[in-house]
Amino acid sequence: MLHHAFFWLNNPASREDRDALIRGLETLRAIPLIRTLTIGVPALTEQRDVVESGFAVSELMVFDSLADQNAYQSHPLHQRFVEECSHLWSKVVVYDVEALP
Amino acid sequence: MLHHAFFWLNNPASREDRDALIRGLETLRAIPLIRTLTIGVPALTEQRDVVESGFAVSELMVFDSLADQNAYQSHPLHQRFVEECSHLWSKVVVYDVEALP
Repeated sequence: MLHHAFFWLNNPASREDRDALIRGLETLRAIPLIRTLTIGVPALTEQRDVVESGFAVSELMVFDSLADQNAYQSHPLHQRFVEECSHLWSKVVVYDVEALP
Repeated sequence: MLHHAFFWLNNPASREDRDALIRGLETLRAIPLIRTLTIGVPALTEQRDVVESGFAVSELMVFDSLADQNAYQSHPLHQRFVEECSHLWSKVVVYDVEALP
């Protein structure tokens, strides 16, 4: 399954805050439950009405199962990330997707 | 780069409409510009405040470049998909993400 989270910053203009959040997300790589982790920023595609480009950073994780994603939520490294970085963001939107075969 | 689109249905309760949209998305696999295409539906994860689960179907595409994503937008198979399926959806939200190395 896919777990795609998008983060809006409290200080959208702060490159420092953005980079601190990216460094925080990098610490999640040590969680073995995560099959792959892709960290990203808005791509400079055409600004169409349907394109949401206000977020600052995104994380796309692939898990083998729903159970693994649930276990990730309570993993100590994830909880430490939330404690240390949640002051940086004003909004988070998460999409959990079951991939079709 | 990642191109992740989420579709809300005009008739959210219609399994038929959902499946028609999924069949439409499957036709996009014939577009060579798309490196990978993952079609999905909401996963049955815990319903937390930050989790957006109202969409019916999602498509995650990986492209080699911004230029390929732009070319995809005007590809005849993509345009045919929009013509044939856009009556099914009420809202689309797209996130275009530049993956960090």
